[in-house]
Amino acid sequence: MAGSFHPPVRTLMGPGPSDVNPRILEALSRPTIGHLDPAFIEMMDEVKSLLQYAFRTENELTIPVSAPGSAGMETVFVNLVEPGEKVIICQNGVFGGRMKENVERCGAEPIMVEDEWGLPVDIAKAEQALTDHPDAVALAFVHAETSTGARSDAEALCKLAQQHDCLAIVDSVTGLGGIQLEVDAWGIDAIYSGTQKCLSCVPGLSPVSFSAKAVEKIKNRTHKVQSWFLDTNLVMGYWGSEGGRSYHHTAPVNSLYALHEALTILKEEGLENAWQRHANNHAAFAAGIQSLGLGFVVEPEYRLPQLNAVSFPDSVDDGAVRSALLKNYDLEIGAGLGALAGKVWRIGLMGFASNPTNVNLCLSALGNVLNTLGHECDPAAAVAAASEVYSSQQ
Amino acid sequence: MAGSFHPPVRTLMGPGPSDVNPRILEALSRPTIGHLDPAFIEMMDEVKSLLQYAFRTENELTIPVSAPGSAGMETVFVNLVEPGEKVIICQNGVFGGRMKENVERCGAEPIMVEDEWGLPVDIAKAEQALTDHPDAVALAFVHAETSTGARSDAEALCKLAQQHDCLAIVDSVTGLGGIQLEVDAWGIDAIYSGTQKCLSCVPGLSPVSFSAKAVEKIKNRTHKVQSWFLDTNLVMGYWGSEGGRSYHHTAPVNSLYALHEALTILKEEGLENAWQRHANNHAAFAAGIQSLGLGFVVEPEYRLPQLNAVSFPDSVDDGAVRSALLKNYDLEIGAGLGALAGKVWRIGLMGFASNPTNVNLCLSALGNVLNTLGHECDPAAAVAAASEVYSSQQ
Repeated sequence: MAGSFHPPVRTLMGPGPSDVNPRILEALSRPTIGHLDPAFIEMMDEVKSLLQYAFRTENELTIPVSAPGSAGMETVFVNLVEPGEKVIICQNGVFGGRMKENVERCGAEPIMVEDEWGLPVDIAKAEQALTDHPDAVALAFVHAETSTGARSDAEALCKLAQQHDCLAIVDSVTGLGGIQLEVDAWGIDAIYSGTQKCLSCVPGLSPVSFSAKAVEKIKNRTHKVQSWFLDTNLVMGYWGSEGGRSYHHTAPVNSLYALHEALTILKEEGLENAWQRHANNHAAFAAGIQSLGLGFVVEPEYRLPQLNAVSFPDSVDDGAVRSALLKNYDLEIGAGLGALAGKVWRIGLMGFASNPTNVNLCLSALGNVLNTLGHECDPAAAVAAASEVYSSQQ
Repeated sequence: MAGSFHPPVRTLMGPGPSDVNPRILEALSRPTIGHLDPAFIEMMDEVKSLLQYAFRTENELTIPVSAPGSAGMETVFVNLVEPGEKVIICQNGVFGGRMKENVERCGAEPIMVEDEWGLPVDIAKAEQALTDHPDAVALAFVHAETSTGARSDAEALCKLAQQHDCLAIVDSVTGLGGIQLEVDAWGIDAIYSGTQKCLSCVPGLSPVSFSAKAVEKIKNRTHKVQSWFLDTNLVMGYWGSEGGRSYHHTAPVNSLYALHEALTILKEEGLENAWQRHANNHAAFAAGIQSLGLGFVVEPEYRLPQLNAVSFPDSVDDGAVRSALLKNYDLEIGAGLGALAGKVWRIGLMGFASNPTNVNLCLSALGNVLNTLGHECDPAAAVAAASEVYSSQQ
């Protein structure tokens, strides 16, 4: 048996976790205090308020679920959906499929609206489904598809849901902190996200927010929520502001220190500034990628700046490139997922990792590895192309 | 809005989280790497093997669930129990009640066997229930009741379950690492624990283990597991050893560094030595508590050394004592829970926090506070009584 584990120091440019700001790692390691300690409860209130800032919402039920993004997704579905109900799910990647699994396991009926992977959700098809299924209780979609790098028009889709008296359920695991997201202004009824993407925090927590309309539906349920751990009625006894804090589960105290720090950093920078930074670094990176002779799965109009699905010629050995990047440069980029497995790399420029140093490292390392493997390209030219974009942004 | 959060430095002697070893906090803050990084996957294998050591099992399905102990409990029930099935639950505290909630939310029928709080589970009553309900699929009980400090005879109860062809489901959230626990030798089929008790790790993960018989039942399910996030069939694709690691959810990378370190520390000390240390510190503490004129809810025979439910005279103001300890000594002890709320303090001597310094601190601080609040006692004599026990242990 080995002793203590000392991780290699990587640069994380995959689909998440992204590089964690050292300030956050330091916060994570502060001494643990009790989950009912008055000082901790004060910090919890600040986390709620900082999450409201990040989500642009005044929703009272805005909290981090004590588990990863998949549990955030499950929290939304098990609380909002009752057996026998219909939920329209717009799928344009892996995570719409996971929504379907969740809806089925609630004993409800998913109505699938399929779009090609790499495209945003088709508004007209969503509208048709809403018209065809007037009894649907919710319209669910992924704002920022981590498997393809496509951004869907959340504002338009939420408006449609409202017009058809449906709840709008939004997955923005990869969106939060990286692109515009307006929970209140767009009329999002339930949203879940992750900490390990554009918040640059450690993985393990899932921020969620529910509108008053969503909370109303939860309160009027006729079946108990199937999960005790994720039942918001119970969780709110601990996170809520009314009548003291009652014990539900033991909060992941140190992870919450880290989230508090991550959100504090986001607020210091300013939300719009963070969005702009992601856009700027993406523009430079895209110029470099094109200079290397590589392409993008998603059209510029719908492209997520924080998650780049980069396509490569058939002749390129996907696994060999990623292994060489990890081995020779300690650089992690992501493999394709689902329908795009073996066809793309997913290169993240998320949160703290969205910076010119990483852009340059990735372009030159990727170019060098491609050259080594016999695919001729000019890494220096790629870096220069990125630099030119940066100069134009001054 | 405040800036970074800097927690006060407390001594944690409540029901958990317990004081975290600084080695573990340091491990927690090591740089994050990807959850599919080869170095991380190697570490996951070590975590599994270390958990097998701590649980004394060779069960292949021995992993930490990526969420707190309550989610570990839910993992066990949603995977093992199908709608319409019967589960016998022996309740002698808060956590048996939570098992009931879980079984009901699985659409199954809980058969409750109630025991007085503070007593261990009555073996004869459990046997009667097994005889009365030959169609029950499982017998579930709490090995170490965190709400009362009582230890039940897990070995005898598991034997009974086997004789009646039932699965034995065991909650040992507070037991693991603090008292004898033999998953294989006792025939435990499913067990869940927590990291923030006798492992002295940060809260947020739940070690679980399933026997081959339990895995067989999961494989033969006729209904899908109601939770996608906690479905062991899917989780094992990531944690399992067969055919590479497939993405399920993003593992809480840094929390797993911490658990790895906590288990490494436990192995360095040796499991039996850790049990003995908990017993020794409890004996000294108990002598001091009695010297202060306070009592124990649980008889010595059934008492958990790591969780002391200490009773006090009616005239003592529970909240005032705990507040004074926190304010004047930065010492956290726990309040009573459920039926014991307002009637006991729960004083933890768990893991790293089970040491003579904490025993002495708690006895003298508690004695001083009681004196200040008008309840005469002799803190110095209490510390001396504890010292005498320590001397006799040399």
